[in-house]
Amino acid sequence: MSIDIAQFREPNYPIQRLFLERWSPRAMSGEIITTDELNTLFEAARWAPSCFNEQPWRFLYAHRDSDEWSLFFDLLVEANQIWARDAGTLIVAVSKLTFSHNSKPNASHSLDTGAAWENLALQATSMGLVTHGMAGFDYEKARIDLNIPNDFAVEMMIAIGKPGDPALLPEQLQEREYPSSRLSTSEISFHGTYPG
Amino acid sequence: MSIDIAQFREPNYPIQRLFLERWSPRAMSGEIITTDELNTLFEAARWAPSCFNEQPWRFLYAHRDSDEWSLFFDLLVEANQIWARDAGTLIVAVSKLTFSHNSKPNASHSLDTGAAWENLALQATSMGLVTHGMAGFDYEKARIDLNIPNDFAVEMMIAIGKPGDPALLPEQLQEREYPSSRLSTSEISFHGTYPG
Repeated sequence: MSIDIAQFREPNYPIQRLFLERWSPRAMSGEIITTDELNTLFEAARWAPSCFNEQPWRFLYAHRDSDEWSLFFDLLVEANQIWARDAGTLIVAVSKLTFSHNSKPNASHSLDTGAAWENLALQATSMGLVTHGMAGFDYEKARIDLNIPNDFAVEMMIAIGKPGDPALLPEQLQEREYPSSRLSTSEISFHGTYPG
Repeated sequence: MSIDIAQFREPNYPIQRLFLERWSPRAMSGEIITTDELNTLFEAARWAPSCFNEQPWRFLYAHRDSDEWSLFFDLLVEANQIWARDAGTLIVAVSKLTFSHNSKPNASHSLDTGAAWENLALQATSMGLVTHGMAGFDYEKARIDLNIPNDFAVEMMIAIGKPGDPALLPEQLQEREYPSSRLSTSEISFHGTYPG
């Protein structure tokens, strides 16, 4: 069930291994995530940087063995339900649209929440947990069903689990169950003005 | 010039030290960042997760000893210029608003760019470099002066440098030159629906 990352991802510059080891598996075991494990992930998230240290990120969650699970699970599109039913915890991440100190719009609310999400994902990887970020869910239903206030944006859902057996995934998902590649650094970074 | 992080930040759950060690100093030494160092940061950034693996992030940059430096430096508000003049490299991060595979709007473009930025910042920390994200600059001037296409959002600026001597900062910035604290995990995470 364990994958040799080096077979899929080769860095051109020497980076921390954790960045390469984090990927987005769908195979999860159906085991629970403990509240201590989950709080350790939120602990990592909370130290992310944010504009004016606003910390716009908020995380709503449901454990698989809780009454609230179906409230979260039912938000997902079917293509995600197929595998996310074996997650231990589902999260809906939201972000505050305005600054607390002056109520003005915070242009960085999504950007900063992405930084917190990445900390959460990296910490999970270091603990042998798997995370999978999702946009495939009903954002408006999430707002209504989870009482998300109007001054918060719905950002993403996250499935967290213990690693599962890829052989138990539907066949077409098994074929996609490996760490994805990336654009090269020269395709995402440019000296001076935007090229073209 | 080195700070005892434990004096300022105490985690309630056992997380990777890197998350605590990353903070946003203003004291930078005026030394250059090499192209290899910078590419190592972009290497970390590129392995961030993104919706449909779109990788919407792009990084425009200028080294302090290049002709393009003033183009980037002049975008900053004066409050940032005061200390960012001693950065080694300035970055303008932008993100693609639409998916490459179907040209539809990508609701996660800022969120995903935030994940890439956090990887960059953490990798820098691990290399003894300092990073400081900034919203205090002229976003529209950035778009014009750096030829940023209309289907990209201007997300943030980033100053990257070697650690400098805080005693050389203006007095009011010296007072703020320490790692900031955070909300507790119980203030940013909620079981079930949004509380209240």
